[in-house]
Amino acid sequence: AKAARIALMPGDGIGVEVMDQAVRVLERLRERDGLRLHWDVLAWPSTAWHQEHGQMMPDDALTQACDYDALLLGALGDPGPLVDHKRYRLPDGVSLAPLLTFRKGLDLWACERPARLLPGAPRYLADPRAEQVDMLVIRENSEGEYVNQGGRLQQGTPHEVATQLEIFTRRGTERLIRHAFVRARERLQIHGSARSFFCAEKGTAAAQVCLITKRNAQPAWGELYTEVFAEVAREFPDIGVTHQLVDAACMKFVQCPWEFDVVVASNLHGDILTDLAAVLSGGLGLAPSCNINPDSREMPALFEPTHGSAPDIAGQGKANPAAMLLTTAMMLEWLGFGPSAERLRQAVAQDLLTSNTQARRCSEVTDGIIAQLD
Amino acid sequence: AKAARIALMPGDGIGVEVMDQAVRVLERLRERDGLRLHWDVLAWPSTAWHQEHGQMMPDDALTQACDYDALLLGALGDPGPLVDHKRYRLPDGVSLAPLLTFRKGLDLWACERPARLLPGAPRYLADPRAEQVDMLVIRENSEGEYVNQGGRLQQGTPHEVATQLEIFTRRGTERLIRHAFVRARERLQIHGSARSFFCAEKGTAAAQVCLITKRNAQPAWGELYTEVFAEVAREFPDIGVTHQLVDAACMKFVQCPWEFDVVVASNLHGDILTDLAAVLSGGLGLAPSCNINPDSREMPALFEPTHGSAPDIAGQGKANPAAMLLTTAMMLEWLGFGPSAERLRQAVAQDLLTSNTQARRCSEVTDGIIAQLD
Ligand SMILES: CC(C)[C@H](C(=O)O)[C@@H](O)C(=O)O
Ligand SMILES: CC(C)[C@H](C(=O)O)[C@@H](O)C(=O)O
Repeated sequence: AKAARIALMPGDGIGVEVMDQAVRVLERLRERDGLRLHWDVLAWPSTAWHQEHGQMMPDDALTQACDYDALLLGALGDPGPLVDHKRYRLPDGVSLAPLLTFRKGLDLWACERPARLLPGAPRYLADPRAEQVDMLVIRENSEGEYVNQGGRLQQGTPHEVATQLEIFTRRGTERLIRHAFVRARERLQIHGSARSFFCAEKGTAAAQVCLITKRNAQPAWGELYTEVFAEVAREFPDIGVTHQLVDAACMKFVQCPWEFDVVVASNLHGDILTDLAAVLSGGLGLAPSCNINPDSREMPALFEPTHGSAPDIAGQGKANPAAMLLTTAMMLEWLGFGPSAERLRQAVAQDLLTSNTQARRCSEVTDGIIAQLD
Repeated sequence: AKAARIALMPGDGIGVEVMDQAVRVLERLRERDGLRLHWDVLAWPSTAWHQEHGQMMPDDALTQACDYDALLLGALGDPGPLVDHKRYRLPDGVSLAPLLTFRKGLDLWACERPARLLPGAPRYLADPRAEQVDMLVIRENSEGEYVNQGGRLQQGTPHEVATQLEIFTRRGTERLIRHAFVRARERLQIHGSARSFFCAEKGTAAAQVCLITKRNAQPAWGELYTEVFAEVAREFPDIGVTHQLVDAACMKFVQCPWEFDVVVASNLHGDILTDLAAVLSGGLGLAPSCNINPDSREMPALFEPTHGSAPDIAGQGKANPAAMLLTTAMMLEWLGFGPSAERLRQAVAQDLLTSNTQARRCSEVTDGIIAQLD
């Protein structure tokens, strides 16, 4: 078989630091498990590249990316150098453009962010049942509130009107929702009948998909989502169904997150819910994520920790590499290296349980994890 | 002086139950403090009215409402009666229409929801600093993501496209943001220099306004908000400023909510953040809210607990009336009955501290609160 090809994009801030740790782990696993893995570094999505070329990536960035099976991204966003006592801050819309460019340009329409509280991770909720949280948030990644069609009329005048259009297609909705049910069934196979979720329509079920909308205030796409959800649900009689308005869902993520299994949400709602899910996992230092096209391997998938570039702590060795290493495990799984992925996840969990993460530097955490790998 | 005129709209489900409690308390306070208060009941926003008339409210609902100084609403939304073993459920968009009709039709452009954890209230966060939370979330209430302009093209076909337009005006943005700073200054006068909030621009400050946007993904109105915020902030040199993306803000509401003072957000972001703020207050049973036009008393203001009609527990005496009574206190304050409002707030707090709320019925909680009033 051909070696799997990975593009590493460290990006900015702590992205660079945690990428170094991912490379150490990948080297160790390649050697240990004899993985056929090749990687290159694509250093362009950084302020440096922008300053030299006036844009974040080369014109053929997407074409270059398509030469790989997976893209592993550190983090994007850089406040830039100090100029005249002010930071030359790249507008967010510029420095983050590569992320949205890849998600849309490679048609990576599903973003998956699991939430589980590993033993030893910070627990933010008072209720000990927070330790039982085991959910998967699946976020629409290609349309909806993120199409960025809109603008500013009479800009700067008292009469200014700014608009932003949200666009949802049935095709985009259906593939997203069906994927959520497929994942729920996979999880059902793993968990068996051990779990139980309330379902008004079907009684309790051992697996569930919860649909998120704001259909009481935004009926147009809320109704589209609701109808498609009902249609697809009929294909999965073994999976329980429920619906939450996004505001109520956010509340329940704090009040009773153990009542969720698979959660499926639009681009913006998913953005918010996955950040809350990260808190349930113990914070951004422990939250992995992937952007995939579940229907096709033609395009590379994009793997990135949920955290950002954290300019406030960048360069100080304070970043927690665990999110990046759990993300690396997701990538290895996607590439077909399941046992290595599982070994890496176990090593992260074992290290978290046996060490005091607070006091260690980024590379020391990786030392601990690598020790657990062997 | 003329008596203040209130319209009571019990609505549906537990709305009716908690309204009964509000009336008991209003009667007691009117007698005790000699308040010049008059009220009528407008029973229309309910399923019953809908079934008889095919709509939720009479055509002249807004005109009728304008005859009052304040509207006190229980809760809206009713799953309807059982027909053929199925509930005849009014679409959310219908049963909730009165709420959005009043907010928009009466130009009640600011929704205020304070978050404080009263001693004795359920604490959902593990960190004891959650007891220090004292924030005010101010939500845009008249435009933005809630304009409901949009629809469904090729509905029901594989080619369907649903759209929803977001519209933000500079006028709507400026009045909202200025109001947030005014409130922050009022709070500064109450708290003095006891509190301290980090502000990158101004060092630490004793009061702060945090602006919420998603400007990295929705730049058009994100930039409008950012620019107006910077302009208005210059008028308030004593108030610290900060900005959070909505996803990060939701996370921080769980990780470090004590770092917030006044939070100002768009309609949808505010909807989500106020539900999280309700959790910080101990849940929906304790979360009051008002919809006001801070510039004008010409239109009545609308007061409603943050909770909904909770059809699952309706009619069982299980609802907590505290949210409704704290809402009643907000209304009394707005009507100029400050001392009675404060007395009511103290009574709710005192009752919560001295009793076991879990075990008591709705009317028993009110008994306890009324006992504290005397
Ligand atoms: C950086 C930003 C555009 C992005 C998003 O909103 O999708 C981020 O918050 C995320 O969750 O990956
Ligand atoms: C009922 C619904 C339309 C409403 C809203 O989204 O504004 C509610 O959630 C609220 O927060 O008052």
